[in-house]
Amino acid sequence: MHLFDGDPLDDLIRLALREDIGAGDLTTEATIPKEARGSAVAVAKSELVLAGVDAARRVFQILDPSVTFTTRHIDGDKLGPGDLAFELHGSLRSLLIGERTALNFVQRLCGIATLTAQASAALEGTRTRLLDTRKTTPGWRALEKRAVRAGGGHGHRTSLADGVMIKDNHIAAAGSITLAVQRAKAFAHPLVKVEVEVKNLDEVREALAAGADMLLLDNMTDAQLAEAVRTVAGRVPTEASGNMNVARLAKVAACGVDYVSMGALTHSAPAADISLAISRVEGATR
Amino acid sequence: MHLFDGDPLDDLIRLALREDIGAGDLTTEATIPKEARGSAVAVAKSELVLAGVDAARRVFQILDPSVTFTTRHIDGDKLGPGDLAFELHGSLRSLLIGERTALNFVQRLCGIATLTAQASAALEGTRTRLLDTRKTTPGWRALEKRAVRAGGGHGHRTSLADGVMIKDNHIAAAGSITLAVQRAKAFAHPLVKVEVEVKNLDEVREALAAGADMLLLDNMTDAQLAEAVRTVAGRVPTEASGNMNVARLAKVAACGVDYVSMGALTHSAPAADISLAISRVEGATR
Amino acid sequence: MHLFDGDPLDDLIRLALREDIGAGDLTTEATIPKEARGSAVAVAKSELVLAGVDAARRVFQILDPSVTFTTRHIDGDKLGPGDLAFELHGSLRSLLIGERTALNFVQRLCGIATLTAQASAALEGTRTRLLDTRKTTPGWRALEKRAVRAGGGHGHRTSLADGVMIKDNHIAAAGSITLAVQRAKAFAHPLVKVEVEVKNLDEVREALAAGADMLLLDNMTDAQLAEAVRTVAGRVPTEASGNMNVARLAKVAACGVDYVSMGALTHSAPAADISLAISRVEGATR
Amino acid sequence: MHLFDGDPLDDLIRLALREDIGAGDLTTEATIPKEARGSAVAVAKSELVLAGVDAARRVFQILDPSVTFTTRHIDGDKLGPGDLAFELHGSLRSLLIGERTALNFVQRLCGIATLTAQASAALEGTRTRLLDTRKTTPGWRALEKRAVRAGGGHGHRTSLADGVMIKDNHIAAAGSITLAVQRAKAFAHPLVKVEVEVKNLDEVREALAAGADMLLLDNMTDAQLAEAVRTVAGRVPTEASGNMNVARLAKVAACGVDYVSMGALTHSAPAADISLAISRVEGATR
Amino acid sequence: MHLFDGDPLDDLIRLALREDIGAGDLTTEATIPKEARGSAVAVAKSELVLAGVDAARRVFQILDPSVTFTTRHIDGDKLGPGDLAFELHGSLRSLLIGERTALNFVQRLCGIATLTAQASAALEGTRTRLLDTRKTTPGWRALEKRAVRAGGGHGHRTSLADGVMIKDNHIAAAGSITLAVQRAKAFAHPLVKVEVEVKNLDEVREALAAGADMLLLDNMTDAQLAEAVRTVAGRVPTEASGNMNVARLAKVAACGVDYVSMGALTHSAPAADISLAISRVEGATR
Amino acid sequence: MHLFDGDPLDDLIRLALREDIGAGDLTTEATIPKEARGSAVAVAKSELVLAGVDAARRVFQILDPSVTFTTRHIDGDKLGPGDLAFELHGSLRSLLIGERTALNFVQRLCGIATLTAQASAALEGTRTRLLDTRKTTPGWRALEKRAVRAGGGHGHRTSLADGVMIKDNHIAAAGSITLAVQRAKAFAHPLVKVEVEVKNLDEVREALAAGADMLLLDNMTDAQLAEAVRTVAGRVPTEASGNMNVARLAKVAACGVDYVSMGALTHSAPAADISLAISRVEGATR
Repeated sequence: MHLFDGDPLDDLIRLALREDIGAGDLTTEATIPKEARGSAVAVAKSELVLAGVDAARRVFQILDPSVTFTTRHIDGDKLGPGDLAFELHGSLRSLLIGERTALNFVQRLCGIATLTAQASAALEGTRTRLLDTRKTTPGWRALEKRAVRAGGGHGHRTSLADGVMIKDNHIAAAGSITLAVQRAKAFAHPLVKVEVEVKNLDEVREALAAGADMLLLDNMTDAQLAEAVRTVAGRVPTEASGNMNVARLAKVAACGVDYVSMGALTHSAPAADISLAISRVEGATR
Repeated sequence: MHLFDGDPLDDLIRLALREDIGAGDLTTEATIPKEARGSAVAVAKSELVLAGVDAARRVFQILDPSVTFTTRHIDGDKLGPGDLAFELHGSLRSLLIGERTALNFVQRLCGIATLTAQASAALEGTRTRLLDTRKTTPGWRALEKRAVRAGGGHGHRTSLADGVMIKDNHIAAAGSITLAVQRAKAFAHPLVKVEVEVKNLDEVREALAAGADMLLLDNMTDAQLAEAVRTVAGRVPTEASGNMNVARLAKVAACGVDYVSMGALTHSAPAADISLAISRVEGATR
Repeated sequence: MHLFDGDPLDDLIRLALREDIGAGDLTTEATIPKEARGSAVAVAKSELVLAGVDAARRVFQILDPSVTFTTRHIDGDKLGPGDLAFELHGSLRSLLIGERTALNFVQRLCGIATLTAQASAALEGTRTRLLDTRKTTPGWRALEKRAVRAGGGHGHRTSLADGVMIKDNHIAAAGSITLAVQRAKAFAHPLVKVEVEVKNLDEVREALAAGADMLLLDNMTDAQLAEAVRTVAGRVPTEASGNMNVARLAKVAACGVDYVSMGALTHSAPAADISLAISRVEGATR
Repeated sequence: MHLFDGDPLDDLIRLALREDIGAGDLTTEATIPKEARGSAVAVAKSELVLAGVDAARRVFQILDPSVTFTTRHIDGDKLGPGDLAFELHGSLRSLLIGERTALNFVQRLCGIATLTAQASAALEGTRTRLLDTRKTTPGWRALEKRAVRAGGGHGHRTSLADGVMIKDNHIAAAGSITLAVQRAKAFAHPLVKVEVEVKNLDEVREALAAGADMLLLDNMTDAQLAEAVRTVAGRVPTEASGNMNVARLAKVAACGVDYVSMGALTHSAPAADISLAISRVEGATR
Repeated sequence: MHLFDGDPLDDLIRLALREDIGAGDLTTEATIPKEARGSAVAVAKSELVLAGVDAARRVFQILDPSVTFTTRHIDGDKLGPGDLAFELHGSLRSLLIGERTALNFVQRLCGIATLTAQASAALEGTRTRLLDTRKTTPGWRALEKRAVRAGGGHGHRTSLADGVMIKDNHIAAAGSITLAVQRAKAFAHPLVKVEVEVKNLDEVREALAAGADMLLLDNMTDAQLAEAVRTVAGRVPTEASGNMNVARLAKVAACGVDYVSMGALTHSAPAADISLAISRVEGATR
Repeated sequence: MHLFDGDPLDDLIRLALREDIGAGDLTTEATIPKEARGSAVAVAKSELVLAGVDAARRVFQILDPSVTFTTRHIDGDKLGPGDLAFELHGSLRSLLIGERTALNFVQRLCGIATLTAQASAALEGTRTRLLDTRKTTPGWRALEKRAVRAGGGHGHRTSLADGVMIKDNHIAAAGSITLAVQRAKAFAHPLVKVEVEVKNLDEVREALAAGADMLLLDNMTDAQLAEAVRTVAGRVPTEASGNMNVARLAKVAACGVDYVSMGALTHSAPAADISLAISRVEGATR
């Protein structure tokens, strides 16, 4: 992840700091001397896959660049209860003011990475790859997609601009799959592929004939998936989608699809449990 | 909820639209004629409590002010499978470009309201009120707190600026509960109360003696909670906190606390299932 | 005061620099060589209470981070004619380009601190505390409230979000003081108090009975204030308000109110007189 | 004044609304029904010269475009106690939420216009024109300069980019008045004039010889001003400056200067007294 | 082109209006009465292909939404001397203040469309399509790519995120074409193709073997291009690139490449000549 | 050029980086190890006058402050094929990600400086100075005007706020040249001059009589220019304007005008040819 001063992530972090700090942290200003310095540790309280370390670091860089942020871990590492995710040193006020915002980022992103790792494990040994979707938290797209990678998943298109995905509504408006694919191929730039959402074998055949580069097999049963894969016969990659959950993944993979995408990775992962504890106070008594 | 042009919510929505649209929706531009107009309906696909209607409306207002957004519902209404959450009419391109962003807002916020309603139901008939926390999605604080209200919960402080909450770290830095409370009372403005986090009866007594206006009973067992409530004896309100879940709430309420706060309402609610379907296409064939 | 990169203060400083610099400082670019370096001193030209040092420092940090800013003083220090408020060293062009903006901040904030110190002195020896109001310069709320603290005053609520203050219009719309207080208590979060503006003894009694946490005695004569204080009898804190000036403060305090708030502290303080002089030029001749 | 969506004034108004509203107006949300509508009037409570009407209108346009703002007055009109400055109609919540911010703009700007009118009156019948300075409230330059015009004053340069003003420090760095003027004439674009700050007759003569287009007679006594004007003998316009106040202006004008500039117009004008009253409530009882 | 309030184009237009208007249009404010209204016409003064109409419209929408903007043309229309590009009606001040900014947008974009049309004409009757590049004016990417489409060209990838293009430097760092292609295929999302820049036939063969989806034939002579096309033999599309100009295009097309990309379309097109004339003045005399 | 954090140039650079990077540089992330470091050189590929060095430096400062940017040149230096414009060292990923944006800035600005130098050379030995215009690329005004200076040209007014330029439309609306000049002189601040656009000798005489400070001789033939200059007889400076090109400049200068302004300098200069080559790779193999 490459951060520049002006990266949209900074916009989100500033929104987050402003909403949490408001007109100032009354409690910290009242009780912690301005000069007090100290250390803090972010500790995992359950099994989790780490993600969001860069976001946490950036929260403190923006809040107070004199705070040092260190970690022995990178996104994707597995942590158990008591393991240190990262350490902080600097102004005690800054540590306490940034605590909640940094944790809110990390807990959510670790939750996504952890769920993704469970889903990835269910696909281990198969040729099917796990994909994320655009069902991400508004404002968090890039962060959540990186958390999916940290958990062993793969990225689907990032925005509406970097891939063509023809769905029902597009087909209805265009008149047919064939017309929609033709228009997309004529319109899109040469480095983009055209995927078509299909619901049955007739649509599979029409999409293939129209020149689709990839097929989204939507809301099919395992049997339907298997039959669709046989029909495609390796001519283009296939993706299974629709209300996936970890328990079903192995069966979906057995149908032979190349990809399975799962919205729950980003929209329904419970937060991981991480807490921040002040581990050392220097000169705080006044 | 009052929205003005410049409200931080608009910043979040613009971030969200920019990240999803990127350099433009290739599929829609390729397949949907510019002039095509139509209607769409957002339909609940499971039982849920509605929230986030204003956010969805604002997504379309910002994206394309000529789209009309109508609904017969308000936040807090209960919807079942097939119920219409809201309807849209206007440029078909705009409906499709805004679909995912609007749904991503609404699905997450309905998820929070729905979980909150389950938790509120568990407290029904007791005098204990359910509170949210600051464990919200960064950038989403105001939205998520409104979703909690929609589900029947109540708001705790919104930011670090509108309430004093003295925790371990503040007490450690200040030297004692007594000193921390004194400093907070001297520092804070006259319309703010001072809450103190306590872990045992000794701390309960010291906080009360120091003049705390409210006590946070942190990570206590039900027995400990009941004893703390007896010790407080109604002198100040009490709040139970720490790894709450819906199943435990009734027992916590039975301990007699005034409030129970639950971070999972906002950090771990699974998304509700809502989808958008084009219900009518006008003049789309080209 | 804690500044982060993205703090709203930075927005104000950037607005200020943009409006003063416009398309560039013609005079300085024409007459001062790019390489010239030097020192400058900000000197008080009359008795004043210092405030706004952080804002002046931040102006130069944003304009040119290589300028060093040093001071032996902190906000609240008393300075006399000829005393140095702060010193600068660095690019001569930067010192001259930032001069007016930095002084415009400091002169206004010192003016507020100086007037506040006069008002505080008038209350010395009494139990009445001086409060600021929301009658601040738009965009300057946080800065001006800090200047009031520097002058020995205390802060009232910072925004409409961190305290309930029920005024005439709210009472009229709600139907009665009693109804307005009930609604506010039901709506507000548990760490916020409810203050009610009252104009006579009947309203004092109704507000107390309704459960108000604090009373604003609005536009009362000294005699009315004294009677109101007797009626309240210490049950809740009282605040006197309405066209206060320094001369009247001692009499108001004698009425026994807990607080007196004074809009003039922030809306009508004349600027303090401070000027910036180049004290040393290095290598300026070209 | 021409306002566009993106005008820096909008940035200031948004900063102001955000700082005053914070996370929401607790009192208004609690006590005023969402549907309540009504009218309000802004009433002068003392003699004043009106200014800032556009800013007040824009506050409500940004806060809630459905509020109607009407006035029979324009900037520069004289108002007495009880006169209506402007009227509002719309959502009662919006009127109350925007009240303080709008008044804070108008009261300050009317204060400036009123002081300027007093100063202008002191110059009436003379050929000397009153100028503002760059000693304005950071963020408010354009607003305050318009208020000066409303009070009958004239504008000096708006920013460092639209006029050359050579002061001591520039002269010191350049080596001499002559060198500084030569460099400025070579550097500046052809539509800009070069003014030189002079402290005595020798400097007057050097500046004229060097080709200065205008002279700033800085911190001179009346006698010195008169002598300087005689020396200039109408070859270029002259401006008197330095700790001006209303009482001295007539004497300064008698010295024959073309302009007198006065920083106090914008940095030390006390706020004018204007209040907002709800004049009519529709459907507020709930 | 879909514009939303918050589209990056709005950022560019606001930058442009701010830089041109600065602290206000002195000439227009001085000479045109505030109430004056009128019409203006934008007239082509030479043969050109129209582009940028949306940008011009948006300039006036942002500057003054009450100005009406009408046109009988769309991007891509051919105009000759005297033809009307668009018409405006509204505040005369607004028309004059927005004139230069709107024309600066339109003239540049028409220049690009006009040069593109010449290049497209040179390829007419061949199977080779004309592509734009990322050599666009910073801040103008989307606008300039649309102008290329208006002139009959096609878009290449819009940003570094929506296509893989492996160049020398990537190959050098990865070790070989083969390794670079493998890594790209493993990393990129499934809807993106991998293009490889090749300089000779050995590289053509290695790239094809490694699985490249498209080849960029860089800086080759016509003979080299023809040989490369024969080697590729239709397995993947080919693109010729490097110092293209209109005169050479037909020969390049004769080599059989699928695409030719030309940076000069966007970086070196001379501006088209369009002027704005006030065609009618209403009530301007004061 | 003075850059501060918040300078509008930064806004343009951030727009440019966002539009080029989008959701991330797929190719670089896939093929270049995160740790790889190296050097790169920007090399002129034809004769050119350097400009835009500060913009290129700033692109990398914003993108990745750890990249070092060094150059032996300043804006205005003449470079030939193979000369190094600047060198970079740091993260290889950052060098490649910033390459196109930095080059797009520099190539355009060098193109402007190079064309300006040709035009300046045509005026060498005459007393006529070359001026730029407001026909600049929206968002680029300050950058392009500096490029004109680098090429030996001079700046005209920067914005509508720093000079009065009365054109046809203003005259038509005001009623006459005389009225327009009078209003402008009364309205503008004292450091601004009033220029009037004239088309014939009658207008020259009226403008002079009205007190114009400078005349713009618009779209005149060489003979008309010469006659106008004789009529003005040195009373005010004169500027020739209207479809200038390098070939005509010497003849225009011979007419005796003080200035000649040329829009093509900024709106039609072809980009200069500069490329970036990785000159050294450290530790890139993974």
